[in-house]
Amino acid sequence: MSLSYAVIGTGAIGGFYGGKLALKSNNIHFLLHSDYEFVKSNGFTVESVDGNFHHTNLNIYNDAGAMPQCDVVLVGLKTTNNGILDAILPQVTHSKSTVILIQNGLGMEEDLARRFPQLSIAGGLAFICSQKTKPGHIRHLDYGKLNIGPYNHPQPEILNQVCQDFNDAGIETHLFQDLLLPRWQKLVWNIPYNGLSVVLNTTTDCMMKDKSLRTLIYDIMLEVINAANHCGTAIDESYATQMMKLTDNMRPYAPSMKLDWDYHRTLEIEFIYSRPIQTALTNGYDMKKVTMLEQQLQFLQRSRQ
Amino acid sequence: MSLSYAVIGTGAIGGFYGGKLALKSNNIHFLLHSDYEFVKSNGFTVESVDGNFHHTNLNIYNDAGAMPQCDVVLVGLKTTNNGILDAILPQVTHSKSTVILIQNGLGMEEDLARRFPQLSIAGGLAFICSQKTKPGHIRHLDYGKLNIGPYNHPQPEILNQVCQDFNDAGIETHLFQDLLLPRWQKLVWNIPYNGLSVVLNTTTDCMMKDKSLRTLIYDIMLEVINAANHCGTAIDESYATQMMKLTDNMRPYAPSMKLDWDYHRTLEIEFIYSRPIQTALTNGYDMKKVTMLEQQLQFLQRSRQ
Repeated sequence: MSLSYAVIGTGAIGGFYGGKLALKSNNIHFLLHSDYEFVKSNGFTVESVDGNFHHTNLNIYNDAGAMPQCDVVLVGLKTTNNGILDAILPQVTHSKSTVILIQNGLGMEEDLARRFPQLSIAGGLAFICSQKTKPGHIRHLDYGKLNIGPYNHPQPEILNQVCQDFNDAGIETHLFQDLLLPRWQKLVWNIPYNGLSVVLNTTTDCMMKDKSLRTLIYDIMLEVINAANHCGTAIDESYATQMMKLTDNMRPYAPSMKLDWDYHRTLEIEFIYSRPIQTALTNGYDMKKVTMLEQQLQFLQRSRQ
Repeated sequence: MSLSYAVIGTGAIGGFYGGKLALKSNNIHFLLHSDYEFVKSNGFTVESVDGNFHHTNLNIYNDAGAMPQCDVVLVGLKTTNNGILDAILPQVTHSKSTVILIQNGLGMEEDLARRFPQLSIAGGLAFICSQKTKPGHIRHLDYGKLNIGPYNHPQPEILNQVCQDFNDAGIETHLFQDLLLPRWQKLVWNIPYNGLSVVLNTTTDCMMKDKSLRTLIYDIMLEVINAANHCGTAIDESYATQMMKLTDNMRPYAPSMKLDWDYHRTLEIEFIYSRPIQTALTNGYDMKKVTMLEQQLQFLQRSRQ
């Protein structure tokens, strides 16, 4: 089975993963906005720790209406831009398409399913350090693993093929039966590091060197793990230690929310903080420190507006 | 009874309260450091909402050894400088002296009593917006009330007279039987506003305008009230609402810790955060959000060093 792919959001995530797929297939279709003209003239570059590459002949579009209806839609948007999917998805999907939201947070699939109840929806979690540094240019600094899981109407043959395609393109990709497990697992990392890096204007390495912050980060991770467990997703407490070790061994890193803050983009507070907090509360658990971090972020964001 | 006073720490607090006392008595003795020469030449100014005044003939010293042994020692130092009291107090006290620590936090009297077990020690809580703006110049912006309470070896006649002297000098002063009550009450305000103004780089008015921060501030106040109650100091939850209202009605204000941060002075984390947290923990209560705030402050302070 050969799948066609639409990539919506050709930034640090969509640009990297779509760009890798496009090394093996010419049936990958990219929706571009601001850098459409640049890429049309100059091509698309990925500067990667795993080897640089450059595309001169991608299928690029600046209008979703001109794109083919694809078997798989990879969404690499910031969750703060998910509103644009309302107009785009009807144009790039057919009745058997699967939409994969490669995003951080909790609740995005639920929102999408409410708007498009017939769609097959899945989620993807990218374990990657990458950023878009200039038009048509992605810089991949570290890692790259992808975890995928179905949200509703699972089409195992398609998701299996997606995993196969990614693995063939050199991306280590795992298929989970339960999307909530990788979603909550990723939150164990994202919730402490994203928010604290913004509030304290710092990076992972500086945080990991400070004994007070190590304690705080670990305690926040345990809150997220407790929340997951209250919500029916079993994660062992040892996962926190595992994430601390992983971060100790990472090169100095500014989490995506820190980059968003530095570049004056809207912060992804809603799906990384507010929804998990609400979901945990609904299930009887109060993430006190996560809530405090969310309130600090809301204040900072509103202060700028 | 006419009391002699030594003022140690002639800044925003000691300078204002000592300066007011010196309007009524010439038995007030000020220890100055950096601005001794300036005050000697130019006098000492208090620019106050209650009326400006200027002293040209204060009893000032730049050496504690030259000061008389006084009945009352008013300490207006930052708690981070309490270490210098070891050398100063033996020189300015006699066997019946009372030392009053006009400082924010918890545990300073305990530390002092350990070093000077024979001394009569009391505490003072200043409800005041004031700052030292330049050498020999204090700016008093708002409020000014003083709450005083004995810590050990209480000498009621002396503390009553101190209250009388302050009230005569135009400072509304109340004597508490239990120092811990005004200490914890003051912490209900200090703990949220001081730390958050530093971490979020803001002032009271901006915090009070934001709905997320209002919730956070109120929750932190409740944690401090719960801690006090666990430690045997009864404070009603309504005190939090009272403090919120008070702050709503204050003019825009940068708490003392924010000024310390802006002027690159060491933050008073130890006595305003760490000791209350430890004391509450010892009494079986975990101030989770206060602890998070303390950890953030420790990180910021260490990042600067």
